[in-house]
Parts: sequence; structure tokens; C-alpha cells
Amino acid sequence: MLELRLVQGSLLKKVMEAIKDLVTDANFDCSATGFSLQAMDSSHVALVSLLLRSEGFEHYRCDRNLSMGMNLNNISKMLKCAGNDDIITLKADDGSDTVTFMFESPTQDKIADFEMKLMDIESEHLGIPEAEYHAIVRMPSSEFARICKDLSSIGDTVVISVTKEGVKFSTRGDIGTANVVCRQNTTVDKPEEATIIEMNEPVSLTFALRYMNSFTKASPLSSTVTISLSSELPVVVEYKIAEMGYIRFYLAPKIEEDEEDNNS
Amino acid sequence: MLELRLVQGSLLKKVMEAIKDLVTDANFDCSATGFSLQAMDSSHVALVSLLLRSEGFEHYRCDRNLSMGMNLNNISKMLKCAGNDDIITLKADDGSDTVTFMFESPTQDKIADFEMKLMDIESEHLGIPEAEYHAIVRMPSSEFARICKDLSSIGDTVVISVTKEGVKFSTRGDIGTANVVCRQNTTVDKPEEATIIEMNEPVSLTFALRYMNSFTKASPLSSTVTISLSSELPVVVEYKIAEMGYIRFYLAPKIEEDEEDNNS
Amino acid sequence: MLELRLVQGSLLKKVMEAIKDLVTDANFDCSATGFSLQAMDSSHVALVSLLLRSEGFEHYRCDRNLSMGMNLNNISKMLKCAGNDDIITLKADDGSDTVTFMFESPTQDKIADFEMKLMDIESEHLGIPEAEYHAIVRMPSSEFARICKDLSSIGDTVVISVTKEGVKFSTRGDIGTANVVCRQNTTVDKPEEATIIEMNEPVSLTFALRYMNSFTKASPLSSTVTISLSSELPVVVEYKIAEMGYIRFYLAPKIEEDEEDNNS
Repeated sequence: MLELRLVQGSLLKKVMEAIKDLVTDANFDCSATGFSLQAMDSSHVALVSLLLRSEGFEHYRCDRNLSMGMNLNNISKMLKCAGNDDIITLKADDGSDTVTFMFESPTQDKIADFEMKLMDIESEHLGIPEAEYHAIVRMPSSEFARICKDLSSIGDTVVISVTKEGVKFSTRGDIGTANVVCRQNTTVDKPEEATIIEMNEPVSLTFALRYMNSFTKASPLSSTVTISLSSELPVVVEYKIAEMGYIRFYLAPKIEEDEEDNNS
Repeated sequence: MLELRLVQGSLLKKVMEAIKDLVTDANFDCSATGFSLQAMDSSHVALVSLLLRSEGFEHYRCDRNLSMGMNLNNISKMLKCAGNDDIITLKADDGSDTVTFMFESPTQDKIADFEMKLMDIESEHLGIPEAEYHAIVRMPSSEFARICKDLSSIGDTVVISVTKEGVKFSTRGDIGTANVVCRQNTTVDKPEEATIIEMNEPVSLTFALRYMNSFTKASPLSSTVTISLSSELPVVVEYKIAEMGYIRFYLAPKIEEDEEDNNS
Repeated sequence: MLELRLVQGSLLKKVMEAIKDLVTDANFDCSATGFSLQAMDSSHVALVSLLLRSEGFEHYRCDRNLSMGMNLNNISKMLKCAGNDDIITLKADDGSDTVTFMFESPTQDKIADFEMKLMDIESEHLGIPEAEYHAIVRMPSSEFARICKDLSSIGDTVVISVTKEGVKFSTRGDIGTANVVCRQNTTVDKPEEATIIEMNEPVSLTFALRYMNSFTKASPLSSTVTISLSSELPVVVEYKIAEMGYIRFYLAPKIEEDEEDNNS
């Protein structure tokens, strides 16, 4: 039997909003250690990895490992029915082909439950090896989201270049070229407003802006984002989920910087 | 001659927003006692009944009974031109085929008038008999609106079931089933947040969510809504208009609970 | 060499938003006295004239007169990437066919630059003679914008009539007629809320509402608007730009008041 009770139910809403544009159907894996998901986007270019550790739940019971296939749009529809202050409980009986979401209002005067059929989804779990990164940038998630959005009005790809002084985001399009430089800046009033560069060697990589913009849908989950870069490794864009886990997005760099993105 | 002066002009804007999706053209009836409307929706399934008593107007003059046919979208367009604090006056001369809406800003510095042609609309006034209801639910109008909206993302019809403990709203659709229970709750800080059940016998009735959602457009008029239910009588969804009257919506229950709604 | 530094960068954003619906491509003229633009709208009915005097810039260097052809939608796209508190600098080298916009965040932690190709645009500079106007109306810009928007839901043209008592805006459409009267009103708490009429003789002129609505896009630039009217002269709708200059829109009156506007 599975029963997961999350007091801060709005967190689950934000998690689904963060990944539903990228992933249509996915298996959610429950084990004694936590609730997780790993999925490729529909064009098999980007990878999402989610972890919510069991300690983060008010109540966490998972008698045996369970993989529950669900359509993310349907989950999102159901979660839209939850109030922002609602407590959310996920329940599944052993061997059942359904899962139940229960929403309790803080005063307990309103209780909603939604039963959803589970799906069979084929998927293989990829091992993601630990890697050394040439450069790790930590910056405000809202700033990163703003830059990706701004640059997409000019071009289709972004070149991310890291030096000791800062990180540069560049693009090029029909109407001209654009560069945005964020300087390393650790002496801010609020730690979450800092831009911090950890660098072993300079790096400059090109990515499709379309995916970067999808990743920034996770911004409501965390005030900071960490971008880990290495030549010829996928970039990791990570949003920490307070005291519970993370969402990580992986995206391979474009090999030829000048290549046109015809998918946009 | 007709001259109705309403200090709280925004009320008239809210009334039109509440009914214009349901009713296209309708006769507004003026008599010494008040300003009223009774109309079926275009598919002749739901009935709207509006009453604004003469006492609620700052000035109310209606020399003889008058039935004025108007297009509600046109009235709504005109009322959009009124500021929220404007005083609205409705004027019609005896025998005239036009009606004039006048809007005065609170400082009297801006005065607008709109003259609109009246229409000939055939309609018959239905007598609505007083009825005994098995159950009457009073609840916050915003809560009711939220539930109807939430359930429509899952299914097309709602089953409303009342017991002494509370009222349950249920639906079923392709992606699963949903139940929302609001418990009777009279010990709240603000009386308008209470959920109060008056029940003679349990009742469970099925309605098209599309209509329920239309009715909830009246929510800005009142912080509470009253839902009166009886087997095989139309449900009455009533929004009181402070010190002036009400909007009541009538909708027949669906006979077969499992019937699919193909109109959505 | 050209280098213009504007501390209040949001002003440039507002200027572009004010004219980009009316004008697609235009030459921006830089001289020692200031930064200016004069352009007809694409249907050659309305004229825009912009002036930002050199004194209003924190730094203003213009070695020789320069006319820079740009697409306003492209400028607008670039300016959307500037934060509202950013300092904006415009740079062009002598003989270069590009212009650079630079945005600095107030803390200097984020610096963006956008390079854009200049275009060759044919245009002739019209001399606009000083004229005597029969009536000049100064009123809150938000009020004027609201009236133009409201009347366009009823009709296509507006008759502006000025008397000593006030200014009347009238329209007529399929659903009826509308008149909005703003009374002269100089005894308000805030001077920008006044409606002030300077009148030599009464005047009544008809204009296409479509253009008036375009002009009101400049409302964020100034809390007041000045409307100067004379029979058989184009109306001037002027928004002052604090301590820097103005945007002026010119529009010829419609000769026959009853003429239908088929362009809407």
C-alpha cells in the first residue's frame, strides 16, 4: 500500500507545471526512500529527473516499490482543483490499477478526492553518471528565466560562456545579435540574489533556447538555479526543492554553433 | 415615463455579466414595484429570473407598466463604458422606442449618455409555483463557483448529493472520477463563509455542469449562494442582491444519471 | 560618433510602445539638439512627431547629424529585454551600418547589448507650420484613453465638440448613439486631474476612432494630454515627455460627418 501525505500541496502543483510541457506520459517511481521520476521529452532530446525524498512528506508509507504510469496533463488538471493551501495525499492499493489524489482544505471543511486510472508506460531508467563539470553557475532562477525568454525573441539558440568574471548568454537572429552578461556577485543583501561562478576552465556551449525556456517553468520551485557545464557533456539545469529534493534537466549541447535550429 | 436612478451603478454591470452568456435578447419589465426579467436560455433548458425592487433605487419613477426588449450584449457593451463608481440612470419616454442609459461620475465632471433602440421580443411569463424543497444548501458563492469550474475539467455533469453532514459534488470523465465534499460548518468567523444545510430528506440529483458554470457568473453579486433541491423539481440557484432582490436560476435535473452530455 | 545615455530607460520603452502600432519603419534623426522622429503611418493618414532634447539625457554625444533607419517592431523586441530600472545607452560609430543598444541594471551586475542593422528608409521631412487653434483641451490622458476605447465599442468615428463649458465626444453605431461630456474643471486636488478648456470659438470635428485609439498608446508617457482643434486643420494630440520633449500626433478631420468608416 502507498500513502504519501504532503502538507505543502502547492509544491506538487508546481512540480507538475514544471515538467508537463516537456513530458506527456511518465512513470512515477515510489520506493522507501522517496518519490521520483525520470523521463525523456517527446523528441528524446532532453531528460528530466525529479526526486522528492520521503523525509519531506508528513506521512510516507510505501510497502513495496511501485511504478505508476500517468499522463501529466491529467495529473495537472486534477491538481488545478487543489487549493494552494490544501494538504495533498496520494494513495494506491497494492495491485490496484488506479491512484487517488485527496485534497484537504486547511480547515478540513472541504475534502476532494480524484481517482485516476494508471497507464502502462514503457521506459528504461538511465543511469546518470556523476561527472566533473568545467564550470558551475548559481544564479537567481528568475534572472535565468528572464534571459532565456528575452533571447528567444531574437534567436533560436543560446551560447552560454563562463569565465571567472561572469557568465555570458549570446544569441543571433535576423534582426541582430544580443549578449547578456551577468557578473559574479556574492556581496548581495539576500543570498538568493547572488551570482556565483565555480570554474575549473572556461567553457562555451550552445543550446536550443526552446528547451531552456521549458526548463525555466520550474522557477517557482526555487529562487536559485544551478547550471553545470562541461564540453561535450549535457548541461544540467537544477532547481532544488526545499528540504525534499530537486528537479534536474539535462540537455546535450549543439555541436555546430552556427547550425540553424529549424524546429522552432 | 420611466426614470430609475441607481447610485451603485456597478450592480447593474454585474447583473448583465451574470445573465448575458445565458440569454441573448430579453424583455425587461418595469412596474411600480420594481425592475424584473424572466427569460429562458437560448436552448430552452434553464430559466433566469431577476428582480430589483423599486426601494433599492435612489429614485424610481414608473408611470405605467413597461416591457423593454433589449439585446443583452448591447447593454453589456454600453455598461462597460460606465465607471465602477458611476451613478446609472435609465430613462424612457412613454411610447418611445428607445431607452437611454446615463452615467454620472461621482464628481459630476463626466457625464455619458447612451441611447439604444428597443426590440420587439416575444415572450411568455411563466408562473413559478412556490415549492417545498427536500434540501437547501447555503454556501460561499466563490466556493460553489470553484467547485463547478474544477469538476468541468474532469466531466460534463455533476451529481449533487445532500446529507445532514454536508453536500457532495461528483463527476466522472475519461480521466477518472472526482468527488468534492463540503461539510456543514456554521462556526466560522464570518457568516458568509458558513456552509449551512437545511434538509428534510436526502437528495441526489444530476445536472449539466455547463449550465452550473453559467450560473456562477453571478457570484460577484453576492458572497453566498443558495441551492434548493427536490427530486424531479428544477434546482434553484439563487444569488441575493443586497437590499434589492435576487437573481434565480432554474435548471431541470437530468433524469438518467449515467446519460452522456453530448452538448459540451 | 553617437552615444546617448538615458538613465530612465523605461521612457524609451514607452516611446516605442506609443508609436510602433502606427509606424513600421522610420528614420530616427540625431543632431546636437536632440533625438527626433517624424513619420507618417502606413496608410499616410496620421503623422507622428517625437522629440527628446539632448538636455534630458545623462550623456549626449552626437558629433554629426545622423539619420538611422530602424524597424520599430525590432526595436520594441530589443527594448522588451531591458528591465524597467535599466539605464539604456544608444551607440553608433561614424559610417557604421549598425546601432547598439546597451542595457545596464541599476546594480551593474547585468549588462546586455543588442546590435541591430540599420535600414535605408526614404522619407521626407514635412515642415509643420505653427498654427492658431480654435480650441485647446487639456485633460487627464487616462480619461481620454478610456473615452476613445469606450466609444469604439459603439461606433467608428468620434465627433469632438468644444464649448466653454466642456468637451463632448460623440459616436453613433448600429446599437445606438453615445455622448460623453467632460466639464471644464480646474479646482481639483491634483493639477493632472484637471480638465481645462482654452477656446476662441466653438469647434466640432469628426475623426476616425481607430487612430485616436492608436494615439492613446502614448498615455503611459504623461498624465495629461493636450488636444488642439481648428476647423480644417489636423488635430494635434500631444503627450509631453517630462523635461525632455513630446510626442505629437496629427490627424486630419473627416470632412463629412456622416461618412461611414469602412476601414475598421
